[in-house]
Amino acid sequence: MRRRSLLAGGGVGLVGAALAAPAIAQSQPEIKWRMATSWPKSLDTIYGGAEYLAKRVAEMTDNKFQIRAFAGGEIVPALQVLDAVQNNTVEMGHTASYYFVGKDPTFGIDCTIPFGMNARQQNAWMTHGGGLDLLRNFFKDYNVYNVPAGDTGAQMGGWWRKEIKTVDDLKGIKFRIGSGTAGAILAKLGVVPQTIPGGDIYPALEKGTIDAAEWVGPYDDEKLGFYKVAKYYYTPGWWEGQAQLSAYINLGEWQKLPKSYQAILTAACADAEGWMIGKYDTDNVAAMRRLIAGGAQLRSFSKEILDACYKATQEVYAEYSANNPKWKAIYEPWRKFLDDEHQWFRVVEQPFDNYMLSVKKA
Amino acid sequence: MRRRSLLAGGGVGLVGAALAAPAIAQSQPEIKWRMATSWPKSLDTIYGGAEYLAKRVAEMTDNKFQIRAFAGGEIVPALQVLDAVQNNTVEMGHTASYYFVGKDPTFGIDCTIPFGMNARQQNAWMTHGGGLDLLRNFFKDYNVYNVPAGDTGAQMGGWWRKEIKTVDDLKGIKFRIGSGTAGAILAKLGVVPQTIPGGDIYPALEKGTIDAAEWVGPYDDEKLGFYKVAKYYYTPGWWEGQAQLSAYINLGEWQKLPKSYQAILTAACADAEGWMIGKYDTDNVAAMRRLIAGGAQLRSFSKEILDACYKATQEVYAEYSANNPKWKAIYEPWRKFLDDEHQWFRVVEQPFDNYMLSVKKA
Repeated sequence: MRRRSLLAGGGVGLVGAALAAPAIAQSQPEIKWRMATSWPKSLDTIYGGAEYLAKRVAEMTDNKFQIRAFAGGEIVPALQVLDAVQNNTVEMGHTASYYFVGKDPTFGIDCTIPFGMNARQQNAWMTHGGGLDLLRNFFKDYNVYNVPAGDTGAQMGGWWRKEIKTVDDLKGIKFRIGSGTAGAILAKLGVVPQTIPGGDIYPALEKGTIDAAEWVGPYDDEKLGFYKVAKYYYTPGWWEGQAQLSAYINLGEWQKLPKSYQAILTAACADAEGWMIGKYDTDNVAAMRRLIAGGAQLRSFSKEILDACYKATQEVYAEYSANNPKWKAIYEPWRKFLDDEHQWFRVVEQPFDNYMLSVKKA
Repeated sequence: MRRRSLLAGGGVGLVGAALAAPAIAQSQPEIKWRMATSWPKSLDTIYGGAEYLAKRVAEMTDNKFQIRAFAGGEIVPALQVLDAVQNNTVEMGHTASYYFVGKDPTFGIDCTIPFGMNARQQNAWMTHGGGLDLLRNFFKDYNVYNVPAGDTGAQMGGWWRKEIKTVDDLKGIKFRIGSGTAGAILAKLGVVPQTIPGGDIYPALEKGTIDAAEWVGPYDDEKLGFYKVAKYYYTPGWWEGQAQLSAYINLGEWQKLPKSYQAILTAACADAEGWMIGKYDTDNVAAMRRLIAGGAQLRSFSKEILDACYKATQEVYAEYSANNPKWKAIYEPWRKFLDDEHQWFRVVEQPFDNYMLSVKKA
């Protein structure tokens, strides 16, 4: 209203209004970014989370800061999101850092590493445990500003054509697995890890070209139909006690953003984090029931197998620490933090959860 | 830059710039709100979470939307935050809804009810399980727009001067407890629940005026020094498997906010949620160690006691459902959702967490 009276007031008012405008314009510039993701659109929780964060940014800026999400392969191949952001081919990406362990195993710690944290612990490490600073320092060398932007919770141990009970049963098993680190660990126990894109897993499993395959959890796995050709559904997916998804932002583009947009983008990522894990925790319930009704047989990895995998995991981590100073600089405080978390989670979270589940079972 | 060229272009440009300005000015008005909280400033995680969300809102709006947090009692008594927001004495508040179960037990479901959800489940229910819609409908009658804005995780079972092993041991125990619902449940088992403000608990416990007192968890409890006068520290605090804190916003004030500010405030609350639980999950570790070093003795409630409390809880909920349609309308879908969550959490979260804790123990 005040503006209008200035307009009515004539020339001096007009100049005043016009002079005042640039500061406002600078603080809320119109920006359009492209966000390359590693996800097919069918993953409506992970890809949906990326879209959700973009929508939130738009809402918070009256559509002045627009981020458009693209599925993997649309403008950048799914597994080249890091390179695309690093080179500023796109301003930002949404991906799982463990896709890049081939460049450096340290990337895994930003997403998940076998026998690692659960979702609460990962959040604690990132928000207050020093994890985010350590990882930002690592990502800087890739010209990336990383922000946690989603989590799947604990994942399943995949679909197996035959039951496995002993470590011997693992020998020679051709297992499609997403985590390269877990693949290296399982290889120590005789498994032959396979890298196969999501869409090609079903036919390989059906033909018996592979013996087993893991993807995410009930809600996502159901869509790919694995239960029809490999009925044993194993738990827990010890290689992904949680999986944090990350927003990657080109460092130069990040630094050019107004402070308010930086804050908005960061808050949108935090919001997407709760949204995504809430959606998994909700949608997995009914999906699990449908899978069981469709013939899936739930199985637990035996203690013998878990213990052997745990031991092999520690060996792999010791090798990384001996050979890779970047890994060591992040893994060691990560390990210390996780050991601390276990001391605390044993005190009340575990007794509360276990009691509730025991009552329900009874 | 474009603005400058318009300016240089003379009169027509000036008019163009001035006409464009009002929309910008309207979308980012200068707003100052007061946020009454129920917290002393010494609770730097809960009160700190309220301050954090205010800080985030300021950052996202270039300080145009300023929210000032006040400790309990500074401008509104700690337990009158609901009334103050309802009457628009303050534009918003930050509190724990279970403080208002005296008005209606249904408030408890927005925060925590005994033998209820853990933090992950609460988040799932609020973000995707229909909980937020149900609770918004309930809060509307109080002229409040509620937004989840923090979580403590599972809380401890308090400090007891003597060990309790059987249900008989509970009889006549004067127990300071924050949750009115838990107080009503424990009263069925012979406990005499006490309502005492935080600052008065220590002297009452020291003199033996009360036999036991619960507050939050190690990090907050340590500050009040209970371990010096009641050394048995019980777990789990079955009445608070998590405690969600809420932002209360006066409904009229909420509706007057520009859409972008609504989105910003909501995202700031989501951000504060992860920040707060991450801080508790981090800071409780060292606090627990210091408490043990200071003489605290960790004890678990016996299965006999937990089972009796669980049974009494179900009786209280049945009474509420029989007598209170508002409770019933929210509790029944809440119960169904929690039962579903237990089916899913048993599949992978529990086996993963339990395995990790078993390895660490060994």
